[in-house]
Amino acid sequence: MSKFFNSIYKGLTPYTPGEQPQDKKYIKLNTNESPFPPAPGVISAVNDREAADLRLYSDPELKPLKAQLAETFSVNKDNVFIGNGSDEVLNYAFMAFCEDGIAFPDITYSFYSVIADLNQVETEIKPLNKDFTVDISAYLGEQLTDEGTECSSERNNDGSSVGCSDEKSERRYKGIGRSIVIANPNAPTGIRLSLEDISKICEANRDHVVIIDEAYIDFAEEGSSAVALIGKYENLLVTQTFSKSRSMAGARVGFALGNEALIQDLETLRNSNNPYNVNRISMKCAVEALKDKGYFDLNCRKIKENRAYTKKALEGLGFRVLPSETNFLFAESNMIEGGELYKALKERGILVRHFSDSKISNFNRITVGSREEMDAFLDQVSALLDFPDLRCGS
Amino acid sequence: MSKFFNSIYKGLTPYTPGEQPQDKKYIKLNTNESPFPPAPGVISAVNDREAADLRLYSDPELKPLKAQLAETFSVNKDNVFIGNGSDEVLNYAFMAFCEDGIAFPDITYSFYSVIADLNQVETEIKPLNKDFTVDISAYLGEQLTDEGTECSSERNNDGSSVGCSDEKSERRYKGIGRSIVIANPNAPTGIRLSLEDISKICEANRDHVVIIDEAYIDFAEEGSSAVALIGKYENLLVTQTFSKSRSMAGARVGFALGNEALIQDLETLRNSNNPYNVNRISMKCAVEALKDKGYFDLNCRKIKENRAYTKKALEGLGFRVLPSETNFLFAESNMIEGGELYKALKERGILVRHFSDSKISNFNRITVGSREEMDAFLDQVSALLDFPDLRCGS
Repeated sequence: MSKFFNSIYKGLTPYTPGEQPQDKKYIKLNTNESPFPPAPGVISAVNDREAADLRLYSDPELKPLKAQLAETFSVNKDNVFIGNGSDEVLNYAFMAFCEDGIAFPDITYSFYSVIADLNQVETEIKPLNKDFTVDISAYLGEQLTDEGTECSSERNNDGSSVGCSDEKSERRYKGIGRSIVIANPNAPTGIRLSLEDISKICEANRDHVVIIDEAYIDFAEEGSSAVALIGKYENLLVTQTFSKSRSMAGARVGFALGNEALIQDLETLRNSNNPYNVNRISMKCAVEALKDKGYFDLNCRKIKENRAYTKKALEGLGFRVLPSETNFLFAESNMIEGGELYKALKERGILVRHFSDSKISNFNRITVGSREEMDAFLDQVSALLDFPDLRCGS
Repeated sequence: MSKFFNSIYKGLTPYTPGEQPQDKKYIKLNTNESPFPPAPGVISAVNDREAADLRLYSDPELKPLKAQLAETFSVNKDNVFIGNGSDEVLNYAFMAFCEDGIAFPDITYSFYSVIADLNQVETEIKPLNKDFTVDISAYLGEQLTDEGTECSSERNNDGSSVGCSDEKSERRYKGIGRSIVIANPNAPTGIRLSLEDISKICEANRDHVVIIDEAYIDFAEEGSSAVALIGKYENLLVTQTFSKSRSMAGARVGFALGNEALIQDLETLRNSNNPYNVNRISMKCAVEALKDKGYFDLNCRKIKENRAYTKKALEGLGFRVLPSETNFLFAESNMIEGGELYKALKERGILVRHFSDSKISNFNRITVGSREEMDAFLDQVSALLDFPDLRCGS
């Protein structure tokens, strides 16, 4: 640290990305990348003409990609914000909407606490339930009476409560007085909240923004995205990414969908910080990726199949595997400690992700890759545990 | 603005990028892009294999590009910081090093005041000299006596001043008590400070960081980059970009060179904000761009030639043209008001940049493009001013 470093940042602990060792060729099941290349249209878009056009700035209004996202998600382009990866989108959302602090689960994407610290946002950490599901009740606040305990008993001439809007009196919970971010499905557990639960949280916290981080939603049951609710809740911001289901982690494109006033606020920050945040080629690639729904659907289906296959095989090897709706599995065994398994697999050329937090240190997060990758992984696990090859008979 | 927007950002006035109108095809001389495509190696790097690899995250440590930059600038890789465009680099530098506020010229890159506001950094605006050069004396603070007035008159046993380091007693100025950012050459004037002047500023302000923004330095006289001084001044941070001389505005790559402790601080912020900030293809392109010194030198030389040619022609048309060391010219005429000229050129399909600030509103900033573009521009200016075609006789 230099003697010049701003004192408000001196205590920061940066995010630790998944390791990228270069000492040998690994099967990488540690950063939730897709095993499939981007859509053919994306490959075609990465060409000499686009390269020559790199001399020109990218469109600071990101128009073609906003239009394509709006079409894909049946929203208006004013409901769309685009960032240089969804990490950037999340950071802008923390800057914009978390003046009263933010609450999130204790086991979740570890980047949230990093950007909270960066932006001096107070955090309130909520434990998960024992089965690793998100504890909804922790995000609702006190229950209100039918009339709403927040309302005054005084009455106006028309009979309505003084200082009490109709909207408020319909609320059943008081809210928690701060913003909320929930990864849904959650990482690294892989478990998803229902749309009803998300509605409840938005409803209870109408004075604060609820951020639903849907990095993995395309691997979940159909119809489970909270994008369907953005017209209903002006306090709901949904973030997604091209890094997982669209096979474009290296292109750095993420986005948020929400009420247009929220989007305007994010645009104010983006245009005050880095108006040309998304590069030309990535923008073009993202448009092409969205256009090819067939390829996208096919890849998501393959991941779900490989996930089911791997989960079953791991269970056959005695693992406890949480019910994942993502492109990874979170699994533990009582035959080998989590950190040991991670190390042994790394020695055998397979990278998975292990977290040191004692609440989950017996688990490993295993990205769902191609069938061949999963077989290689299962072979190694099976050998490590000294099981005969179970796949053939499964 | 939403009702949820953080109150500290409510007063922000975002940066206004140069216009990108889509109504017809313009000759774009308004955003200082290069008229030349990126180097052939860059074009080759934008290929199917790279596209397929977009499924993988970019290297969060940016190793190959750090190594190439270190080689190109004869520094250590720990002296190199890389951002998603130099705007991002500047923003991190403002976050990291401007706790006591920042000073910069009143006529300069307008983004500085935007990121200062974004980061709640107090600004001190220093007028330029009447000839539009930067007024060095404004950045030095009070002059000190030979012994340094800051030193105590008490003496230690060895004769040195109590509480006064040798270093301090060599200082001739007190400094201004805050950080400094200077675009060198400055924009939109195009005028450059000498290395001696930059040394003086660094010397006088050893307790604060001096940021020298060298976006345009490759179009200046050789040997004028302050990178040569980073080993000497631990408080000097030099920023540069691939957007201008490397023809890669659309790729979004900028960088800073400085003392390794400064770089570490910037890395702490980057890794707490967006560790995968530079995308895979841009990183690869940047490496290739650096490797081709011949192409780079050739393009810089062509721009300088076209700049001299255009300057002479404009002067022939009665313009006052500031002495530019950049890829643009800043020029005014007493025959047509700056805003009028801008408008008339736009109607004729040529975009230049006009600034409304009354101190420079009679000027236009004209990007130096290809010879053909400059001829088209000069033809229109000449026609507007009703001059005969002066180029043939010039």
